[in-house]
Amino acid sequence: MTVEIPETMERIVLAARPVGSPKASDFRLETVPMPVPGEGEFLARTIWLSLDPYMRGRMDESKSYAAAVEIGAPMEGGCVGEVIASNNPKFKVGDFVDDRFGWQSHAVSNGQGVRKLDPSAAPLSTAVGVLGMPGITAYVGLNTHGRPKTGETLVVGAATGAVGSLVGQLAKAQGLRVVGVAGGADKCAYAVEELGFDICLDHRAAENPKALRKQMASACPDGVDIYFENVAGKTLEAVFPLINVHGRIPVCGMIAWYNAGALGADAGEGPNIMPKFWRTILVNRLSVTGFIITDHYDQFPTFVQEVGGLIRDGKITYKESISEGLASAPEAFMKLLEGGNFGKQLVAVSADPTR
Amino acid sequence: MTVEIPETMERIVLAARPVGSPKASDFRLETVPMPVPGEGEFLARTIWLSLDPYMRGRMDESKSYAAAVEIGAPMEGGCVGEVIASNNPKFKVGDFVDDRFGWQSHAVSNGQGVRKLDPSAAPLSTAVGVLGMPGITAYVGLNTHGRPKTGETLVVGAATGAVGSLVGQLAKAQGLRVVGVAGGADKCAYAVEELGFDICLDHRAAENPKALRKQMASACPDGVDIYFENVAGKTLEAVFPLINVHGRIPVCGMIAWYNAGALGADAGEGPNIMPKFWRTILVNRLSVTGFIITDHYDQFPTFVQEVGGLIRDGKITYKESISEGLASAPEAFMKLLEGGNFGKQLVAVSADPTR
Repeated sequence: MTVEIPETMERIVLAARPVGSPKASDFRLETVPMPVPGEGEFLARTIWLSLDPYMRGRMDESKSYAAAVEIGAPMEGGCVGEVIASNNPKFKVGDFVDDRFGWQSHAVSNGQGVRKLDPSAAPLSTAVGVLGMPGITAYVGLNTHGRPKTGETLVVGAATGAVGSLVGQLAKAQGLRVVGVAGGADKCAYAVEELGFDICLDHRAAENPKALRKQMASACPDGVDIYFENVAGKTLEAVFPLINVHGRIPVCGMIAWYNAGALGADAGEGPNIMPKFWRTILVNRLSVTGFIITDHYDQFPTFVQEVGGLIRDGKITYKESISEGLASAPEAFMKLLEGGNFGKQLVAVSADPTR
Repeated sequence: MTVEIPETMERIVLAARPVGSPKASDFRLETVPMPVPGEGEFLARTIWLSLDPYMRGRMDESKSYAAAVEIGAPMEGGCVGEVIASNNPKFKVGDFVDDRFGWQSHAVSNGQGVRKLDPSAAPLSTAVGVLGMPGITAYVGLNTHGRPKTGETLVVGAATGAVGSLVGQLAKAQGLRVVGVAGGADKCAYAVEELGFDICLDHRAAENPKALRKQMASACPDGVDIYFENVAGKTLEAVFPLINVHGRIPVCGMIAWYNAGALGADAGEGPNIMPKFWRTILVNRLSVTGFIITDHYDQFPTFVQEVGGLIRDGKITYKESISEGLASAPEAFMKLLEGGNFGKQLVAVSADPTR
C-alpha cells in the first residue's frame, strides 16, 4: 500500500503567551517541510485533532503538572491519525492511531505511548472524546474520587461538554440525581432530553451569582453529595453552600478561571472566599481531590470496555462539535474557552476523514 | 463510701454571642442549686475541664457540625470527673469518668457515652489531652488522612498545642521530617528540644507573611507532603506554594480564622486566594480532607493502646497549661484563642484534683 506524501505539512504554533483570553495573534499557522521518519519511526497524517480546555494551561508559563508549550513550538494536543509511512514493524501503513501529535497536519512518532485503534469498534473520533482522555477523566473522577452511591445528588458543570456529559450519564446509570449547569437553553434542553439529566441550569440566563445559587438550591432539595469540578467560578460558588456532610469534590478543571486572570499574577479580585470554603471543608468533612488523568491510565482498558459497551448498547450518547481544517483550530479553541462549543470539540484536519 | 455534697454548684454560661474575639462579658459565672440524679443517673464533680479551640465555633450561630450553645446555657466541654452519687449500677461513687459535662463544677449524667478511667494507667488529665479528643485528632488526622511515608516532610501549626505536638511526635516516630510553626521563641525551642521536631518557625517573629513563606521554603527543601491543618491563616498561605504533587491536607481546625471574622458574614477582606489554591489542588493532585474526630471514635481503643504505650515508653511527651478554678475558664479560653497557652489547656475545677 503506497500513499502519496506531500512535500510540506501545516502546523499551528504558539506565537505569544496570551494575557487573559487568547486571541488570534497568539497563534501562527506555518507551512514546513514534511518530516521524514527515521529508523523505528512512522509518519502519520492527522485525521482528528482534539481541542480541550487544559490546553489553555499549556500556554502559560506558570508551574504546572506539564511543561508549557514553548513560543514558536506547535501547540500540544491529542489526535487520531493514520500511518502513511513506517519504519516501525509495529505500525504499518493504514493503521489508525491515537497519539499526541499536536496541532499539526502530520507528525513523526517512534510509537511510544501510541494506541492503535480499531475503526470497526467505534467511530475514530471517539478515541479523543467519549472513549478517550475526556471520557476516562469523567469515569475516574466520578468512580474513583466521587465514590457515587445510589440516591445521591451530583452536580456537574459544562454539562454538555466532553467530560460533563459523560459524568452525568454515568451517574444517572448508577441511580443518582444529576443536576447539570450549562450555558444556553439549547444545551440545557439537550442535557435533560438527550443525556437524561434530572435538571440543567442555564448559567447564562441567571441574572447574577445569587440567582444561580437560588436555582441550585431548588434543584438540589437534598443537598449535593458530589460536585464534579471542571468549571469553578460561579458554579462552584453556587454549589458550595449546598454540599452535604461527607461530600466529595473531584477537581479536574476550572475553565471559568483559566482566562479570567484569576489564576495568574493578577489574581485577587473580588472578596476572599477561601476562609468560608475552607471552613465548609472542615465542618462538612469534605474530600476535595485534585486529579490529573494521566496518573490513572492503568484504568484505560476497563474504562474502554465498560463505556464502549454502554455506547454500543445505546445507554450513553455523545455529541461532537466539528471545526473544519487545521487553520480553524485557534478560533474553535477560543470559542471552546467561552463555552461556544456544543459537545466534544474536534478539528477535522484531513479533508475527508475516515470516521 | 459517702461524700458530702454541697447544696449549690457553679457553671459558666454563654451570656452573649461574641463578635470577633470573645470578651469577658460574653460569659457569666452562675451559682445554681445542685442537681439531684434521677433513676439510672449519677452525679459527678468535675476535676478537669478541657479547653479547646473548637469551642469558639459553638459560640456562633452559623451552621456547623454541632448545634450552637444557647444563650444562657452552660458552655460545652469535655471533662474528667469523679462520681459522687449514683443511681446507676454501672457507675459507683469514686469512679473516674470522661464525659462532656461542660463548664460546670458538677453534672448529672445517665452514663451514655461516658468512658470510665483507670487512674493508675495514666494521669487523669491525659483523658482530655494526649490520650483524649485532641490526641485521637492528631492520630487519625495523621494516619488516616495524612497517610505518612518515611522520608516525607510534614508541616503542622500550633506545634506545641495539644494536637500539633502529638502530630509532630507521631510523624517523627514514623521517620518524617517535621516542621512546626508556633508563636514565640520558647515554644519553638520546646518543639525542637523536647518534642524532637526538625525545626520550628516562630510566626510571631516573622515580619510579614512573605518572611514566613521564605523561612518555610528554607525549612522544607524537599517541599511539603503533608500539611496538617489546624491553624489556617498565614501558616496555610506560607505552606501552600510548597505542597508537593500528591500532597495531603487533613483539615481539623483553623484557629487563626475563628476570631478574625474571616468565617463570618464579614468575610471577604484581603485578596481572593481561592482560585490559586483551587488550581494548586488540581495541578498538584492534592487530597484535602476535612474531618471531625467524633466520626472516628471507633479508633479510640487502638489509639489509646498505641499512644498510651508510647507515653509509657517515654517516646511521646506532652505539656499542660493549667488554669486554677472554674471562674478562670473564660480568661484561659480567650488566651488559648490568641495562642497564650503553652501546651494542652486545662482548668483545674476541683480544689485538689486527683491527677
